[in-house]
Amino acid sequence: MALYVQKYGGTSVGTVERIQGVADKVKGFREAGHDIVVVVSAMSGETNRLIGLAKEMQEQPSPREMDVLVSTGEQVTIALLCMALEARGVSARSYTGGQVKILTDDVHMKARIQDIEVDGMRADLQQGRVVVVAGFQGVDPDGNITTLGRGGSDTTGVALAAALKADECQIYTDVDGVYTTDPRVVEGAQRMDKITFEEMLEMASLGSKVLQIRSVEFAGKYNVPLRVLHSFQDGPGTLITTEEDDTVEKPVISGIAFNRDEAKLTVLGVPDIPGVASRILGPISRANIEVDMILQNVAADKSTDFTFTVHRNDFAAAHDILLKIKDELGAREIVGNNKIAKVSIVGVGMRSHAGVASKMFDTLAGDNINIQMISTSEIKVSVVIAEKYLELAVRGLHSAFDLDAADTVSE
Amino acid sequence: MALYVQKYGGTSVGTVERIQGVADKVKGFREAGHDIVVVVSAMSGETNRLIGLAKEMQEQPSPREMDVLVSTGEQVTIALLCMALEARGVSARSYTGGQVKILTDDVHMKARIQDIEVDGMRADLQQGRVVVVAGFQGVDPDGNITTLGRGGSDTTGVALAAALKADECQIYTDVDGVYTTDPRVVEGAQRMDKITFEEMLEMASLGSKVLQIRSVEFAGKYNVPLRVLHSFQDGPGTLITTEEDDTVEKPVISGIAFNRDEAKLTVLGVPDIPGVASRILGPISRANIEVDMILQNVAADKSTDFTFTVHRNDFAAAHDILLKIKDELGAREIVGNNKIAKVSIVGVGMRSHAGVASKMFDTLAGDNINIQMISTSEIKVSVVIAEKYLELAVRGLHSAFDLDAADTVSE
Repeated sequence: MALYVQKYGGTSVGTVERIQGVADKVKGFREAGHDIVVVVSAMSGETNRLIGLAKEMQEQPSPREMDVLVSTGEQVTIALLCMALEARGVSARSYTGGQVKILTDDVHMKARIQDIEVDGMRADLQQGRVVVVAGFQGVDPDGNITTLGRGGSDTTGVALAAALKADECQIYTDVDGVYTTDPRVVEGAQRMDKITFEEMLEMASLGSKVLQIRSVEFAGKYNVPLRVLHSFQDGPGTLITTEEDDTVEKPVISGIAFNRDEAKLTVLGVPDIPGVASRILGPISRANIEVDMILQNVAADKSTDFTFTVHRNDFAAAHDILLKIKDELGAREIVGNNKIAKVSIVGVGMRSHAGVASKMFDTLAGDNINIQMISTSEIKVSVVIAEKYLELAVRGLHSAFDLDAADTVSE
Repeated sequence: MALYVQKYGGTSVGTVERIQGVADKVKGFREAGHDIVVVVSAMSGETNRLIGLAKEMQEQPSPREMDVLVSTGEQVTIALLCMALEARGVSARSYTGGQVKILTDDVHMKARIQDIEVDGMRADLQQGRVVVVAGFQGVDPDGNITTLGRGGSDTTGVALAAALKADECQIYTDVDGVYTTDPRVVEGAQRMDKITFEEMLEMASLGSKVLQIRSVEFAGKYNVPLRVLHSFQDGPGTLITTEEDDTVEKPVISGIAFNRDEAKLTVLGVPDIPGVASRILGPISRANIEVDMILQNVAADKSTDFTFTVHRNDFAAAHDILLKIKDELGAREIVGNNKIAKVSIVGVGMRSHAGVASKMFDTLAGDNINIQMISTSEIKVSVVIAEKYLELAVRGLHSAFDLDAADTVSE
């Protein structure tokens, strides 16, 4: 007898048949005696279809009207899922974000949730109904429809689970859990039974695409147990939860994340004086280019080298900006490389274990992989290497940190 | 400087280009200094697409969820039209039925409007905004989405015009006004500049498909001047309004309506005793078959004949019902005919002119058309004739009552 908030994404409700599959699944949970709140996205393709119509009307569609438009996508799904549930004899009731109501600020297309009224949903649950809520949307204090931005349905699920004090927020996806690393790269990659919020956050921000970062932050903040599961396969999935006391048996590192989308830029020989960093990154940030790693080593000879990484798509634009300000900066040269990759080891275990970083560097050195940049946080170590070594590095680290499944051996 | 409520139906907003055409039209009215509230339907085809999805989910979809589903159709249109207006530099703001709010009772799929809040719309109008409202939908006292039933967007337009005390409610359609009769049948049919609510009601209920009956009733009740216009052609259209004092010059009859969708059934030789009519029509009504004309002549010989008309699609079902209860009724025989048509002359002028009915009968007799049934109201006379005489009858009457355009002559 638990209360679960279950979120099904666009692919999981992408066709009439899949919505019926979700209804079957929800029916099973009801028959097992659980209370269920379902959060759904728009049927896959629908949001893009609506955005396409909008662009035909106005080059930069009004954000307020954009929210009125795209919020219909989820509204269609909630109604269809309720019908499918009722057809199976499962009492259900749909809610738009405004009907719940999920109160947000008034920033259209990327609103943030401020409050959730739970009385209506609680009354339905008490009457044995499944509550079906449109994800990704809310309503501002003036009654305008808002959306949380793309992928925001995960956040709706977590926020509802927090507000309802649900036992678990279950995110149904097209994978059966969170893996120690990408199984397409390492054959022996294993599904983790459990991972902490902090680790999941690092994994997500370092390139693992299973969950939206914001929903993980939210779950961690409100301590909502989060479980990633496969929509159409049975299995325990991966539970994302707070760090437990009995971490004795916890592996030193939990997973290996990587990211091929990076490029690095170095400003060589800038004067080592205060304000240099902001004079370099100011113009980059004003061009809406996001910067990931930033590295500046100690100065030798009154000048220093300043390196940072950007998304590979922004490489050319960032390079142009630096060339334009090179003389003004007093820099000697601008060099760049967009054939790099970032590999990170993540784990709360490394807090209490010295030597994790050096083991990582040793492993890479053993494979003759040169490390170009290093960045660390309390629970992760990231390195930038040449892209061609990515698979070699990930496999070597996966094995070195004993993450391989028992029945596979990495050489 | 007038306030107009303009309603554009599904065909008028059926494509991206047509929505842009509506935006151009509305922009013209704004530039002429008028305040505009626009009511729109779903893009043509969209409502049927959604209903199709629903039927795949549940044989008899839940009415509450059906309203959640189909109301998205108009919501898409209001957003797109606002974008098209903004792209033309016309400030605009969309409202769903719930946002207005258009308060209805809780009868899903055929709700009735109970109240409309106008403060939000008035504030927008005062700020120079075009207000764009989703037709056909409202919200019940518990916040559930309701719909007014198909075609209900006309009713939304009239209700908004009444609540806002608009100067006119303009219904944009695919015809340029209301005609004295169907121009496809009578070449000389003329667009009427003006017609009374009562006449329009009779015309609508007798087969003229220009306006929803309910919206005309509503307009008459609240005395909202209603104008029928063509969406994409300029022209004055037809104004539907209250009867004016100076009806001296008014023609005796205003128009001729007809209906090919009828079938008649007669129960021959039923005992002429109280309760017979209800014993015949009770089972018909319980089968959800609507009855139009009912005729029972004085009894001869202690038995009588009872005739009524139904929609042609219901003819077989009604016939079966009568056969089943024939013996119980003590009737001699059941006869029916589904090759009939109803022709009606309509006009408030006939109130003050004797002999209108006899002129109608004379005209038909002159063409050797036999009258099978007659029914009258204060401002109309309807006759049922064999279907094959329909065009002949309409043309003859159109000419006899001087409705032909000056430059055409009916023989």
